[in-house]
Amino acid sequence: MPASPIRKLVPLSNAAKERGIKVYHLNIGQPDLPTPPNALEALKHIDRSVLEYSPSDGLKSLREKLAVYYHRFNINVDADDIIVTTGGSEAVLFAFMSCLDPGDEIIVPEPAYANYMAFAISAGATIKTVPSTIERGFALPPIAEFEKLITPKTKGILICNPNNPTGYLYTHREMNQLRDLVKRYDLFLFSDEVYREFCYTGAPYISAFHLHGIEEQVVLIDSVSKRYSECGIRVGAIITKHKELKKNVMKFCQARLSPPLLGQIVAEASIDASADYMLGTYNEYVERRKFLIDGINRIPGCYSPIPMGAFYTVAKLPVDDADRFCEWCLREFSYEGQTVFMAPASGFYTTPGRGKDEVRLAYVIKIEELEKALLVLEKALEAYPGRTL
Amino acid sequence: MPASPIRKLVPLSNAAKERGIKVYHLNIGQPDLPTPPNALEALKHIDRSVLEYSPSDGLKSLREKLAVYYHRFNINVDADDIIVTTGGSEAVLFAFMSCLDPGDEIIVPEPAYANYMAFAISAGATIKTVPSTIERGFALPPIAEFEKLITPKTKGILICNPNNPTGYLYTHREMNQLRDLVKRYDLFLFSDEVYREFCYTGAPYISAFHLHGIEEQVVLIDSVSKRYSECGIRVGAIITKHKELKKNVMKFCQARLSPPLLGQIVAEASIDASADYMLGTYNEYVERRKFLIDGINRIPGCYSPIPMGAFYTVAKLPVDDADRFCEWCLREFSYEGQTVFMAPASGFYTTPGRGKDEVRLAYVIKIEELEKALLVLEKALEAYPGRTL
Repeated sequence: MPASPIRKLVPLSNAAKERGIKVYHLNIGQPDLPTPPNALEALKHIDRSVLEYSPSDGLKSLREKLAVYYHRFNINVDADDIIVTTGGSEAVLFAFMSCLDPGDEIIVPEPAYANYMAFAISAGATIKTVPSTIERGFALPPIAEFEKLITPKTKGILICNPNNPTGYLYTHREMNQLRDLVKRYDLFLFSDEVYREFCYTGAPYISAFHLHGIEEQVVLIDSVSKRYSECGIRVGAIITKHKELKKNVMKFCQARLSPPLLGQIVAEASIDASADYMLGTYNEYVERRKFLIDGINRIPGCYSPIPMGAFYTVAKLPVDDADRFCEWCLREFSYEGQTVFMAPASGFYTTPGRGKDEVRLAYVIKIEELEKALLVLEKALEAYPGRTL
Repeated sequence: MPASPIRKLVPLSNAAKERGIKVYHLNIGQPDLPTPPNALEALKHIDRSVLEYSPSDGLKSLREKLAVYYHRFNINVDADDIIVTTGGSEAVLFAFMSCLDPGDEIIVPEPAYANYMAFAISAGATIKTVPSTIERGFALPPIAEFEKLITPKTKGILICNPNNPTGYLYTHREMNQLRDLVKRYDLFLFSDEVYREFCYTGAPYISAFHLHGIEEQVVLIDSVSKRYSECGIRVGAIITKHKELKKNVMKFCQARLSPPLLGQIVAEASIDASADYMLGTYNEYVERRKFLIDGINRIPGCYSPIPMGAFYTVAKLPVDDADRFCEWCLREFSYEGQTVFMAPASGFYTTPGRGKDEVRLAYVIKIEELEKALLVLEKALEAYPGRTL
């Protein structure tokens, strides 16, 4: 399994810190926002003398609460359709392991979350990508591009909606096209919808479970990490109405015994987070998004489409090679004792050469910090020997 | 991946409970003993506003504390040799995924923990077993039996010491034989030592890391689950001095982002559990072990060797088929409104037919309950139509 270009930069970031340089982290999806206070409070009130295994498919009370949560989004599933996993990561891994045999293929629009690839490799499967482009704002590639890649080994299509890394939100029309394709070729539709709380444009969030006629083919991936800013608790879920698939997933769940008990207790409380908390978080991202995107687009030679959801954007920079530029920022550059850590977009593409001048930026730091980070980025672009402007 | 016979019985156990029958759980390794009070207290004092990702290899403070813990057992490793995992299960999975290619083989004495098999399948590898027998008290099979199975595809030997399911503790002589073999054929020695706190006979616990000359080949599997009765927190570890292997393991760790934060906090506190707590737990198991083994061996036709460690034993029963007998206990039998849930040993063997009249019993319930469970078992054996006595 190859190390991603982002991971390779982590030691450099630490080295920069050791040199006394302040590093602005735009590279990771770890929000700085607080975990819901009622969830932290729940931890203090755990009244158990034995921290024992939870059921392999998760605490029933959590699954029931999740079902109620999904109903709010018009996703009609019940507790028995939900399997709790150790984070969204395990949900993706078990979904792949359960649906795909070695040699099977799935189709994914790229850029895509880099770890999908790692999990596909673990399952012995292959990811085929259809390119979405910054010029088209990372809209779903024409459905004919998907169809071209379908072979007898194709078992599914994977989307992330709202999208990591692009922030794109698929339209009703796009989702219907996917539905038709999935139906026609009898595929699974793996849909990672962990950012559903963060849709900013008024356009509707269309869950894969809103699509009629493919209910048995949808494999929903979820996680509480991002929406409640609790990435460390490792609680996610696979939601499926496919009975046979559920049985397969359960075998993997039973082999690893149980998802984390404490995280499940926190997750369950988080679903009761106050409307104020949820709105506060939402509003904060709305402001950061506007601030970051406006700021990026004001820097000469930079361009970012306006992301519609999640808390990322993929931006184009006037550089010869974003991998090199990001590394240079950490290794050689500083402006008034500061630098920026960005994720080179190459790690989100499988097609070599794609995204060469793009980076993913996460707006998970405060506006005051984003402001400084943007200034540092501008200065870095002025000083970078490989600038193309 | 096949469902194990134990898992298949779980619904029957629930059905028995729904019929109002009290079920004594001798089937699982979930201790009823309390988690260390200071660890539960640590939970109440978590002073974090964001429950964020921990590092992929675990909190540094936990790794440092684990290193100190291992030193107590004369295991000379440092924090950098330790990678924290999501339970011992993930440690086994990542060890296999990192060391084994599809088609590779490892050799395991059977009976063995059933999930090893599941993880080997996930890695595309094959487990070859050498039988240990109840007649020999489940001692290590003659080393020549291992050697016979070695092929160019053999990559390692896996042991569990003290052993689940048999309670056997490998002797110095046996461990040295394994060392010689591992050295001669340049193999990995995967050693699951999660039960090291529970050795009852005064015989020494020999860690794989005590063996000289194979330090780079040892892959130690650990978990805090059993020793601190906190199976639900999902914290384990892989310990290796092999730099290349560590890099491989880290790729899997990075793909799943991080082990559970809250569990790590609890685990770290648990290592400071008081001597009183540790001794209390130990003494409780000593008593239960004596009580259970004496009791089993008093029932006509039953036999259990005396386990030297862990909290299990494999016992021989006078029945035609332990799978059928265990199922019958849950489905049809009751004595004064009670029945017993045991794990048929067939699930711990890969050789068909082996362990047919054996069950694994865990002494993880109170002595008063063990007493009742033994009586119920005796009555069940008298009533069972397939009894062989």
